[in-house]
Amino acid sequence: MDKYCFGVDVGGTTVKIGLFRDDLQMVSKWEIPTRTEEEGRYIISDIADSVKEEMKNKELKPEQILGIGIGIPGPVLEESVVNNCVNLGWGVVNVKNELSSQLFYLPVKAGNDANVAALGEAVAGAGEGRKNVLMLTLGTGLGGGVIIDGKIHAGAHGAAGEFGHMPLFDKAVDYCGCGKRGCSEQIAGARGMISYTKHLIAGGESRSGLSFIREFSARDIFDFAKDGDELANTVVNEMVETLGKELAILGVSFDPEVFIIGGGMSRAGEWLLDKIRASYEEKAFHAVKNIEIVGATLGNDAGMTGAAALILRADAGR
Amino acid sequence: MDKYCFGVDVGGTTVKIGLFRDDLQMVSKWEIPTRTEEEGRYIISDIADSVKEEMKNKELKPEQILGIGIGIPGPVLEESVVNNCVNLGWGVVNVKNELSSQLFYLPVKAGNDANVAALGEAVAGAGEGRKNVLMLTLGTGLGGGVIIDGKIHAGAHGAAGEFGHMPLFDKAVDYCGCGKRGCSEQIAGARGMISYTKHLIAGGESRSGLSFIREFSARDIFDFAKDGDELANTVVNEMVETLGKELAILGVSFDPEVFIIGGGMSRAGEWLLDKIRASYEEKAFHAVKNIEIVGATLGNDAGMTGAAALILRADAGR
Repeated sequence: MDKYCFGVDVGGTTVKIGLFRDDLQMVSKWEIPTRTEEEGRYIISDIADSVKEEMKNKELKPEQILGIGIGIPGPVLEESVVNNCVNLGWGVVNVKNELSSQLFYLPVKAGNDANVAALGEAVAGAGEGRKNVLMLTLGTGLGGGVIIDGKIHAGAHGAAGEFGHMPLFDKAVDYCGCGKRGCSEQIAGARGMISYTKHLIAGGESRSGLSFIREFSARDIFDFAKDGDELANTVVNEMVETLGKELAILGVSFDPEVFIIGGGMSRAGEWLLDKIRASYEEKAFHAVKNIEIVGATLGNDAGMTGAAALILRADAGR
Repeated sequence: MDKYCFGVDVGGTTVKIGLFRDDLQMVSKWEIPTRTEEEGRYIISDIADSVKEEMKNKELKPEQILGIGIGIPGPVLEESVVNNCVNLGWGVVNVKNELSSQLFYLPVKAGNDANVAALGEAVAGAGEGRKNVLMLTLGTGLGGGVIIDGKIHAGAHGAAGEFGHMPLFDKAVDYCGCGKRGCSEQIAGARGMISYTKHLIAGGESRSGLSFIREFSARDIFDFAKDGDELANTVVNEMVETLGKELAILGVSFDPEVFIIGGGMSRAGEWLLDKIRASYEEKAFHAVKNIEIVGATLGNDAGMTGAAALILRADAGR
């Protein structure tokens, strides 16, 4: 009898669900909307209903399901309890118990979404075959995950891998969402990068095509930089300098086998990765200079895959 | 029949050896000189002879000895092989095999000295009872060790915990021993701190009692700072700012249960620790602000204790 598991990636807008074979091969995937209304009270039952429907479609019996792994955009304790997840409207929710009780009391393991995505890339993506992996996710902010000895290292407060809040960008003008100023995500996350660019444009230090676009994106900044726009290149260089320093710091701290760069901004591709590699090599301690810096390969599937790995790789979570 | 083990801490001048009961209680300790002549070829046999002598004195049979743990001032692979240890004059040495073959083929486990000392503090010192511990050793340079899930995390190149080589001190004047400029140990290690102080004195920006001492120590700098010397306080503040930033960075990276501060400079005591705590609290991400910062408690015994723990705590090394 074939065995399967489900990997669930809960986002603020949609929930991604994947059905996986016990060798971590994806069989099917789909999305449902995240109903955040009424303090997100329908999210877990929506997931349970959707999983049951797929089991019916595929004629799977509960005995064939090894469990459900789930990534949540907030801190998760003991693979079970979410404590205040603003994006979902949740207060304290025992995801493990609530989901399990609606799904034949199957095993459920929950993890923070960034950590779970890092696990996905580590076990089946850009870090496949590696046990010690750091992933940096360049999205709206800068997040990430720490995989040590093949397992998620979440930290004492679930804050391990909060790479966006290293105090490394002294030139930051605004305050970061965390209340500090100078966090690395204020240049290496899309929101911060855009805000810093607007500040430079307002300062009028150099001319830029970006000043003619009312609302530009991080992608626009990269595109203008590629086309030689001076101000856009100044911004990209600041970003790359900060990330290079950040990786050099992480190199002598964790000494991972590989750095994986993911998130929406990493779509700038090898052009950006090469700049980051050059900055890292310039700043890195000699013993760790040759650590590879690679782009993530699973894209939006990383979360589901990592969630499935929580179930399939014994002791992969914490 | 009582069981014991030996913990050995190899330094450039002396080798510290401790006999431990299997509950990690120290029974006896002593030192022998480190004979670095002739490429350090006598070091291992000296240790073996000294251990055998103690076994004779205490009437211990080989069956009572669970093993020998040993800390080496260089990178150690697979708990066995040292590759180029300049301080000892060693090229490639398989410490495990060589020591074991001279000691009744008892189990031997080797680790890097800074990592092993961190393990000692984690299992029996300032971090007792904690599984996730970062130790920073403020000595001539700045070193440290990473304990995750009760085990040493040495990293892919043995460089995890090389905390002195984070590029965080932009004001550095000289080059660091590693070839870079701006490493944190250029202000947070004694050698760098003294050098930076001399540079400030030569610059003549402010007067200092230190300018009347030909060769002052880091301790002198702390003493003068405590007495209100302006320049000494400038230096100490730079050091504390750098360390606070470094800990804030490590806080969002590892999120440990506790930071342990050890090494010779930590003898400046609570006066220094309080400054470091204040700097950390100012810079740290909210979720990790309450991580404790404590002084090491085992002093020179940390290395021997951690070495013994390599044997007594299954899987404590890597």
